[in-house]
Amino acid sequence: MQRACITGGAGFIGSNLADRLRSDGVEVVIVDDLSTGRLDFVRELLTDPGATLHQGDVLDQRVLERAFEGCDWVFHLQANADVRHGLEHPRVDLEQNTIATATVLEAMRAVGVSKIAFSSTGSVYGEPDIFPTPEDAPFPIQTSLYAASKLAGEGMIGAYTHGFGFTGLVFRFVSILGERYTHGHVFDFYCALKRDPTRLRVLGNGRQEKSYLYVKDCVEAMMTAAHAHEDRAGELGVYNLGTDETVVVDDSIAIICEQMGVEPVLEHTGGTRGWPGDSPLILLDCERIRSIGWAPTVSIREAILRTLRWFDANPGIWNASAASEARVA
Amino acid sequence: MQRACITGGAGFIGSNLADRLRSDGVEVVIVDDLSTGRLDFVRELLTDPGATLHQGDVLDQRVLERAFEGCDWVFHLQANADVRHGLEHPRVDLEQNTIATATVLEAMRAVGVSKIAFSSTGSVYGEPDIFPTPEDAPFPIQTSLYAASKLAGEGMIGAYTHGFGFTGLVFRFVSILGERYTHGHVFDFYCALKRDPTRLRVLGNGRQEKSYLYVKDCVEAMMTAAHAHEDRAGELGVYNLGTDETVVVDDSIAIICEQMGVEPVLEHTGGTRGWPGDSPLILLDCERIRSIGWAPTVSIREAILRTLRWFDANPGIWNASAASEARVA
Repeated sequence: MQRACITGGAGFIGSNLADRLRSDGVEVVIVDDLSTGRLDFVRELLTDPGATLHQGDVLDQRVLERAFEGCDWVFHLQANADVRHGLEHPRVDLEQNTIATATVLEAMRAVGVSKIAFSSTGSVYGEPDIFPTPEDAPFPIQTSLYAASKLAGEGMIGAYTHGFGFTGLVFRFVSILGERYTHGHVFDFYCALKRDPTRLRVLGNGRQEKSYLYVKDCVEAMMTAAHAHEDRAGELGVYNLGTDETVVVDDSIAIICEQMGVEPVLEHTGGTRGWPGDSPLILLDCERIRSIGWAPTVSIREAILRTLRWFDANPGIWNASAASEARVA
Repeated sequence: MQRACITGGAGFIGSNLADRLRSDGVEVVIVDDLSTGRLDFVRELLTDPGATLHQGDVLDQRVLERAFEGCDWVFHLQANADVRHGLEHPRVDLEQNTIATATVLEAMRAVGVSKIAFSSTGSVYGEPDIFPTPEDAPFPIQTSLYAASKLAGEGMIGAYTHGFGFTGLVFRFVSILGERYTHGHVFDFYCALKRDPTRLRVLGNGRQEKSYLYVKDCVEAMMTAAHAHEDRAGELGVYNLGTDETVVVDDSIAIICEQMGVEPVLEHTGGTRGWPGDSPLILLDCERIRSIGWAPTVSIREAILRTLRWFDANPGIWNASAASEARVA
């Protein structure tokens, strides 16, 4: 790999991947509209002439074509990642995820780039019967517009591998934690507790079981798979990315409270799901990615602790949110 | 069911369904832009005050809202059905299938209609390992943009059942034959042989094994499922629709030639697939739809013969195509 483009490359996972690729000597081209991605996350990287930023919209095919020119791989990580509010704005997942992915694929074809790695989600399994859930689980029924839009992206990438000889990689993530993590459960709990350490509203009954993966382990898994698939044109590799652990929401709250030194009263809203489309249990079978030489290095507890330490060191990240109205998960 | 809307209701399957619903006393509202659908197919039906046509585009949400007003069910059958040329125009499947389905769902929500039946395809199974292929086959990899766009539609409907309490039905069809069939293998072969009965170009090696279902059996299956799901809000019913038979392409050609009284030389282009994304074998496990009281009444051979008889009786349908340049499958 000589040169790679990362859509959403100024975001949480994207900027970690950008650092990792650059440290391998890969030229990095970032496409980001900086709506969720932050210039801060890539400011240092961009002082290196081997890294460039194209600020623009992934729905603008010309922006993408300019950025993809000469790249071996496109890591398409840009997405609407607001999983919980899909029902309030059904058009957002369609545009930012489904149509954006279609635009990325057409831009690649236009400039002759044919290797794509895509950030999908473990949510595409809906509410599976099999745990840990393998990649070839029974054909699932979708329970969220976010997952449906990721599934749509997977499907198009599959068709491009089959029809145009693309090399495709689909990563079905659990939730990712670590440095530069800026939204999701742990972020919301931290902000809420900074605002009011005496009480914490928790969506659902607190018993939802989640799996988390540390961002640098996640990035390492993507690198491992990309190298393994360098010469597998016409094929779609689908990989679950997660750990073998889960943690229930209330236990992750306990870790957060312990670290922050607070003892809030937990106010559960009740129900087995935090919101419609929330999965009561996510646990992925990651044997396939392990079989090509990857393993996570960090436990869920440690991933949470590293995330909290990063919040502590970067108060600018959460100050605004902590001050604003409840974004409590 | 008092009143139902059919998108694509002037098309092949849609107009057959419209007739069937009307004969049950259901008020029928047809939405069709008449680009592939034909006014001829619904002209007689529209003399009945219980049937109306809204000529318009399914991408125009206002057209849909006006048509859906007061309906119990929406049968969303409109689609780009040009399965074979998806790679030449990737945007068509995205717009006509994926975005159109999103627009249908939003229009339904806007006017408070919550029961949707959707024409998907057996192609969403990609190239499965299990035959006959059941609805809960292992999570497949898509091999065509057409199937990918149908899968995207399935996913969004699943999310609407889960998130908005919609009642959802997904029908994964094999190829459908019968009266008003106007594109696909049998149509293309018939037109080509009318043009030149001495030779016939066949894409692939002619050994691709296809399953076909007679259109009136298909429509009956949709009615059976809709009645079975009247009170199953919040649920997505997924049903394969097909027969237990298959026929290889060369054998369906033999039936066509026998009926037409011609003996062409077959010129196979070779390969196990007719085109990229073509399935070498489609055979669906239809136990689920049979278990709720449906069974096909017509064999594949009989379905082909009825189709040919309909062509013979409606030369206007194929005359233009037969005269024009090769649309030979």
